[in-house]
Amino acid sequence: MFLHRKELIRPVNVGRPDARFGTFLLEQFGGATGELTAALQYWVQSFHVENAGIRDMLQDIALEEFSHLEMVGKLIALHTAKLDQADVYASPLFRVRGMGPHFVDSQGSCWTAAYINEGGNVVRDLRANIAAEAGARQTYEALIKACTDEGSKKTLTHLLTREVSHTAMFMQALDKLGKLTDPIFGNVEPDQTVNVYFNLSKNGKDERGPWNQEPMFTFEADPKPRGGLPANPVNPDDERGKLKAPKLAAE
Amino acid sequence: MFLHRKELIRPVNVGRPDARFGTFLLEQFGGATGELTAALQYWVQSFHVENAGIRDMLQDIALEEFSHLEMVGKLIALHTAKLDQADVYASPLFRVRGMGPHFVDSQGSCWTAAYINEGGNVVRDLRANIAAEAGARQTYEALIKACTDEGSKKTLTHLLTREVSHTAMFMQALDKLGKLTDPIFGNVEPDQTVNVYFNLSKNGKDERGPWNQEPMFTFEADPKPRGGLPANPVNPDDERGKLKAPKLAAE
Amino acid sequence: MFLHRKELIRPVNVGRPDARFGTFLLEQFGGATGELTAALQYWVQSFHVENAGIRDMLQDIALEEFSHLEMVGKLIALHTAKLDQADVYASPLFRVRGMGPHFVDSQGSCWTAAYINEGGNVVRDLRANIAAEAGARQTYEALIKACTDEGSKKTLTHLLTREVSHTAMFMQALDKLGKLTDPIFGNVEPDQTVNVYFNLSKNGKDERGPWNQEPMFTFEADPKPRGGLPANPVNPDDERGKLKAPKLAAE
Amino acid sequence: MFLHRKELIRPVNVGRPDARFGTFLLEQFGGATGELTAALQYWVQSFHVENAGIRDMLQDIALEEFSHLEMVGKLIALHTAKLDQADVYASPLFRVRGMGPHFVDSQGSCWTAAYINEGGNVVRDLRANIAAEAGARQTYEALIKACTDEGSKKTLTHLLTREVSHTAMFMQALDKLGKLTDPIFGNVEPDQTVNVYFNLSKNGKDERGPWNQEPMFTFEADPKPRGGLPANPVNPDDERGKLKAPKLAAE
Amino acid sequence: MFLHRKELIRPVNVGRPDARFGTFLLEQFGGATGELTAALQYWVQSFHVENAGIRDMLQDIALEEFSHLEMVGKLIALHTAKLDQADVYASPLFRVRGMGPHFVDSQGSCWTAAYINEGGNVVRDLRANIAAEAGARQTYEALIKACTDEGSKKTLTHLLTREVSHTAMFMQALDKLGKLTDPIFGNVEPDQTVNVYFNLSKNGKDERGPWNQEPMFTFEADPKPRGGLPANPVNPDDERGKLKAPKLAAE
Amino acid sequence: MFLHRKELIRPVNVGRPDARFGTFLLEQFGGATGELTAALQYWVQSFHVENAGIRDMLQDIALEEFSHLEMVGKLIALHTAKLDQADVYASPLFRVRGMGPHFVDSQGSCWTAAYINEGGNVVRDLRANIAAEAGARQTYEALIKACTDEGSKKTLTHLLTREVSHTAMFMQALDKLGKLTDPIFGNVEPDQTVNVYFNLSKNGKDERGPWNQEPMFTFEADPKPRGGLPANPVNPDDERGKLKAPKLAAE
Repeated sequence: MFLHRKELIRPVNVGRPDARFGTFLLEQFGGATGELTAALQYWVQSFHVENAGIRDMLQDIALEEFSHLEMVGKLIALHTAKLDQADVYASPLFRVRGMGPHFVDSQGSCWTAAYINEGGNVVRDLRANIAAEAGARQTYEALIKACTDEGSKKTLTHLLTREVSHTAMFMQALDKLGKLTDPIFGNVEPDQTVNVYFNLSKNGKDERGPWNQEPMFTFEADPKPRGGLPANPVNPDDERGKLKAPKLAAE
Repeated sequence: MFLHRKELIRPVNVGRPDARFGTFLLEQFGGATGELTAALQYWVQSFHVENAGIRDMLQDIALEEFSHLEMVGKLIALHTAKLDQADVYASPLFRVRGMGPHFVDSQGSCWTAAYINEGGNVVRDLRANIAAEAGARQTYEALIKACTDEGSKKTLTHLLTREVSHTAMFMQALDKLGKLTDPIFGNVEPDQTVNVYFNLSKNGKDERGPWNQEPMFTFEADPKPRGGLPANPVNPDDERGKLKAPKLAAE
Repeated sequence: MFLHRKELIRPVNVGRPDARFGTFLLEQFGGATGELTAALQYWVQSFHVENAGIRDMLQDIALEEFSHLEMVGKLIALHTAKLDQADVYASPLFRVRGMGPHFVDSQGSCWTAAYINEGGNVVRDLRANIAAEAGARQTYEALIKACTDEGSKKTLTHLLTREVSHTAMFMQALDKLGKLTDPIFGNVEPDQTVNVYFNLSKNGKDERGPWNQEPMFTFEADPKPRGGLPANPVNPDDERGKLKAPKLAAE
Repeated sequence: MFLHRKELIRPVNVGRPDARFGTFLLEQFGGATGELTAALQYWVQSFHVENAGIRDMLQDIALEEFSHLEMVGKLIALHTAKLDQADVYASPLFRVRGMGPHFVDSQGSCWTAAYINEGGNVVRDLRANIAAEAGARQTYEALIKACTDEGSKKTLTHLLTREVSHTAMFMQALDKLGKLTDPIFGNVEPDQTVNVYFNLSKNGKDERGPWNQEPMFTFEADPKPRGGLPANPVNPDDERGKLKAPKLAAE
Repeated sequence: MFLHRKELIRPVNVGRPDARFGTFLLEQFGGATGELTAALQYWVQSFHVENAGIRDMLQDIALEEFSHLEMVGKLIALHTAKLDQADVYASPLFRVRGMGPHFVDSQGSCWTAAYINEGGNVVRDLRANIAAEAGARQTYEALIKACTDEGSKKTLTHLLTREVSHTAMFMQALDKLGKLTDPIFGNVEPDQTVNVYFNLSKNGKDERGPWNQEPMFTFEADPKPRGGLPANPVNPDDERGKLKAPKLAAE
Repeated sequence: MFLHRKELIRPVNVGRPDARFGTFLLEQFGGATGELTAALQYWVQSFHVENAGIRDMLQDIALEEFSHLEMVGKLIALHTAKLDQADVYASPLFRVRGMGPHFVDSQGSCWTAAYINEGGNVVRDLRANIAAEAGARQTYEALIKACTDEGSKKTLTHLLTREVSHTAMFMQALDKLGKLTDPIFGNVEPDQTVNVYFNLSKNGKDERGPWNQEPMFTFEADPKPRGGLPANPVNPDDERGKLKAPKLAAE
C-alpha cells in the first residue's frame, strides 16, 4: 500500500526559472534514464524476487525513486511556471502542452516501458539496476554541466549522489549472492567456447587487454566461419514473382 | 567497413521444425534482450569511447553479436520453413508476415532503439553491457527450457555461453578501469547523503543486509520528509475553468 | 514524499492459478486502461493544477491507484507462480519473460505515456480522468466476465467499484467548477458556428436526437464546402522528378 | 463509402508564412490531441455502437474531423511553402522531411493509435470523446496564444469552436442515456466501498470538497492497509543466482 | 471536404463468423500494410505534390482506401459480433477490448505513422506507394490462404484486386514522369562510383546477374576499405571513468 | 558471419564541426530513411528469398549499407566531438546523451523496426527496397542542401550516389523477374474490377492522365456505393449504458 506526504523528501529551490532548461530536465522525469524508469523497474522486480532481504531493498529504493521523481517534477514545474510570452519559440514543448512535468523526454518522446530491463532472475535484475543507475548518474552529470542556476544544481547533485548510493547497495546485494565479479549465473552449463575471444574487427594491429588475454581468455586472432553454408528453407512463395497472371489491358 | 562470409560462425541445425517455437525465438532476434540490441549497443558505443583497447573490444564483440543475430535468424528460418496448413492458427505471426525472421519480438512488437542503453561515459557503457548480457542469458535459458529439439538446444546453449564470455570480458574491462566494484565514477562530487539507506517500505519488521548496514551504510529506520511543502507555481490557465463564456442556446 | 506499507490496501486471493488469465490481467497493469495510466495521469496533473482542493484529490486518488496497481501485480504474480511445464505454449509471455507482472499489456505491447491525457487546464484534466475511469471500468468488466476464479473475481469487482467511486469524485469536482454539463471552458470566444450540426454521413434517412435538434442545434442537412479551393503552395522540389541527370551506362 | 470535394469545408488563409509556427501546428495534425485522433476514434466507435442515432452522430462528427484534419494540413502546407534558406535551423523538421503536413506531432513523434480511447460500451466511448475534445480545445487555445498571423488565428478559432460544439453533442447523447452525471454504467454491481474516500496524501491539513464529503462520500482520514501481507509466489529461478557453475579460467 | 455514404463501396458478407480470423484481419485495419497506412500516405502526399493530375490521383485513391478501411472494419465487426463464451481464450484481443475493429495489428500492436513513407518529392512518393501496395497485396494473399469463409474470401479478393489496380496507376504516373525504369531523380549529381557493384558478402562462388554485370555495372570482386582509419574525436568524458572520487565508507 | 575492418569503406572528413548539423545527420543513422533501415531490411529479406542470385545481391548491398551506417556515424562523431559550452542550447540532444551517434532520428525519436517493409515475396521485397532507396536519397538531398561544410557534403554526395546505384540494381532484379513494369504478382487471380478508376475526389473538373485513361483504365466519373447498408452486428454491451445500477448516496 502506498502513502504520500505532501512535503518533499529533500528541498527543491529554483533561483532563476528557465523553461528551456526545464525541457532538459524532462529527461529525468519521462526519459530513458529518468526516475520513472528506476522506480518502476525496481518495484516490478520485487514481485518475482524470492530473497526477502533483496526484495525489501528493491522496494525501499523504488520508493525513494518515486520521491525523486516528485522532486524532478517539482523542479520542472518551477522552471516552467512563467512561460515568457516574449519568445514563444523558446520552449515549444511547454507552450503546447502546458506548464509542469509531462511523461516525455527532453526531445518530446513519450516514456515507454521498453526502457525497463527485468525478469526471471535476481542476478539479472541487479545487474540491470546497476546499469540503470549508471545511465541516470550520467544524465544528471550532463544536466549539472548545462545548469546555471545554483538551486537547481544543488538538487541535481543530491539526486546524482543517491544514484551512487543505490549503485553501492545493488553491488552489495550482488556481492552477497557471489555475483558481483562472477560472470556466470543460472542453470545452464556453458559449452567449451566460454574462454575464447574472437578478434573480428581488424586493422592490422591487435589491441590486447585483460579482456582478451591469458590466463582467462584464448585469443583467436583470425576467426573463420565454422558453421558451414546454411541450408536454405523452401519458400514456395518466391516463385510467385514469376507467375503470369492475367494482365491489365494496356500492359 | 563490414564484410560478410556466407558460412555461419557456428553450426545451426534443426531436427523438428516447429513454427510456434519459431515465434519464441523472435525474442532473441527482434526482442529487447536479443542479438540486435547487443550488436547495435556495443557498436554504437565504439564511436565515443576514447580508450583504444576497450573500443576495439566493443567492436570485436559487436561483430560476434551480428554473427549471432544471423544464427538466430537462420534458426527461425528453419523452424518456419514449412508452415503447417493444417493448423492455420498455430503460428499466426508467420502466417501473416511470411516465413523467416522479422524484427519483432515473440509478442509481435517491433524492435525499438529504446532498448539500447549507452552514452557519454565508458563506465556507464560497460555496466549497461553487463546488464544487456544478463538479460540475453536469461532469455536464452528460458528458450532452452521451452525447447524440445536437440539441434536447436545445442545452438541456443552456445549462444548463451557466449553471453557469459562477453560478460567476463566486460567485467575485466571495468576492473581495468577500477570500476567493477567501485560505485563512483564521473566528475561530480557526491553530497553528504551518499551513505544513507532510507527504510521507506515497511511492515513492522526490517530486513537487514550488507546493502543497508554498517560500516558502509547508515540505516534511517523512519525517514521523514525534509523538503518542506513545495511552493506551487502560478498557473493562470487553471482559472479558465471557471470563466463564463457565451453558452450554447439550450444550456 | 512517497511511503509504502508492505500490506496490501485490500486482500488479493487466488484459488486456482491460471497463467493464461494472468496474461489478460496484464491489461490492467501495463495496458492502456490500466492502473499505471490512472496513477501517473492524476499524479502528474497535480503539478499544474492550481486549485488546492482538487490538487489534493488528484493526489489522494493517484495514491490509491498505485496501491491498486500493486494489487493487480500481486494477482498476476499469484496466477503465474507455477508455470505449467506440460503446456509450454499456454502462456508464452510469462514463459519468455519470467513470472510476475511486467509493464506490457495483454498483447505484449509495452506501456507508453501516449496513453496519458493531461495538461494546461483543470477542466480538461478532469474530463480526461472521467474517460480514463470509464475505460478502466470497461476492461475490469471484460476481465470479470472472462474469469472463472472466485477470489480473483472478488478482487476485480473491488477494483471496478473504486473506478466508479473515482468517477463520482471527478464528476463532483467538475460540477463544483460548473463544468460537468457545460461544454465551454477556457479563454477563447467560440465563433458563430457553435450551434451548427453538420449531417455529413448519409443514407437517405436522417437520424435525429437531442444532439442535433432544436433548440440547441441547427441541423444542416446537406452541408457544402465553404472554404473554396485551397491555393497550392509552390513546391520547387516536385519539378525534380522530371530532371534529366546523367544516366547509368545501360539505361 | 467516403467521398471528397476538393474545396475545404471552411476557409484557410495565411498572411505571413512561418515554418516554425508550422511545427507547432503539427500537434493538431499528427499529435495526441489532433484531428486524426478525433476522426479515427469516433469513426471506429461507430462499428460497435448499437444505438442507431448515436452511431450516426459519431459518423457525422468523424467526417467533420477528417475535414478539419484537411484544414490543419492546408494551414501547415501554407506555413511551410517557402522554407527560408537563410536560416536552415529555424524549422529542422520540414527541412529534413519536406514541406507540408506529416503525421508527427510538434516534437517529431509519430502519431500512434495509443492515443485512441474506445471500445466495448457506448458510455465509455462518449466519455472518451468528451475528454478528446477537451484536449483538442486546450491545444487550439495554446496555438492561438502562440499565433501572430490573423488568418491562421481565425481558422484556429473556428476549429476550437467546433470542438466545443462536438462536446455539447456528446454531452447531449450521454444525457439521453442518463449517464452525463451518473457515474455508474455497465453490468457489474459495485461492492460496498463505493462511497469511501481514502485520504492517502497528507500534510496535516485535509482539503475538503464535494468530492470527499457527506452526503455522498465517507471520508476515511487515515486509511490503513486491509489486505494483509501478500503471500509470495514460489519462484525457483531466483535460487539460480547462487548456483555454482564451472568458472572461467581466471576466476 | 470529406463526405460519407453509409452504404459500403462494395459488399461485405460473412458466412461463418470466426473471431480468431477476425484477429488476422486486424492486420489490414490497424497493421503496417493495412488500409489506414495506404489512405493516410497517399492523402498526406497530396498536400505537397505540385502536379495537379498526380495530386488528384492521390486523392482519388486515398478516398478509395478509406472506403476499403471501412470494408475491412465491417468484416472484422461481423467476425467478432458473437464472441463465443465457451472458449474465452480463442480471441483474447476482442475479449478484452470489445468487438469490432481497433487500430492495432493482428499481434495487438498499435498503428503508428512510422509505417508511412512520404515527403519532399513526387518520385519518392510514387515509389513508396508501389511498395505500400505490394505489402498490402502480399498480406491479402496471406489472409485469403488462411480463410475458410467464402464470403470473406470474395471480399478479400476484391481488396487485393484493387491494390493491383492502384499499383498500375502509380506505375503509369511514374512512367509519365519518366521515372518508372530510371533510377535517377532529384537535383544532386551522383559521383563517379554510381556504376560500381561491391561484392561484400562471399562464399567462394560469386552469383552474377544483370544487377552486377556489364554493361551497366562494374563488378568489384574483392572490395577493400578506401576510407582510411577514422580519426577519433576527443571525448573528455571517457577519462572520467578513471577519476578517483571520495569513496563510500566500506569501499 | 560478419567481419570488420577498422578502415572506412570511403573517406569521411569534416572541416568545420557543427553539432546542430550533427543533429540533422541523425536522420540517416537512426531515422526512418536511414542506413540502419536499409541494412536491416535487405539483410532480413535474404533469409526468405529463394532466388540465389537475388539473395546474394541483398546481402552484398546490406553489407554496404552497414558500412555506410558506419560512415554516417563517423560524420556525426566528428560534428559533435567538441560540444560548444558557450551555447548549451545549440545541440540539446548531444548535450544530454553525449557525443557521437545514437539510434534516434533528428527529432530524437528512437529507431523502430516499423520502418522496415519486407516479407513473403521477393517482388514485394524489391519494390519495398526501391522505395527505401528513394526515401534515403531524398533525405540525403535535404541534408546536402542544409550543409555548409565541403567535406561533409562530399561524403553525403557519395552516400546519395550509392542509393541511386542500389536503386538501379533492384530495378534490374525486378526486371529480370518481369515485374519492374508489371503490376501483377503472386498467386491470387484479380477480379473483374482490376481496370476501373474511381473518381472519388471532385471539384467539378476531372484531371485525366495515363493513370485513369483508356486503353488501360475505365474511368468511373461518379462512383456510387454498391455494397448496400452494412448489417449491424449485435453488441449486447451497448445496452449496458442504460442499465440502472444502485447509485451513490447523493445521486
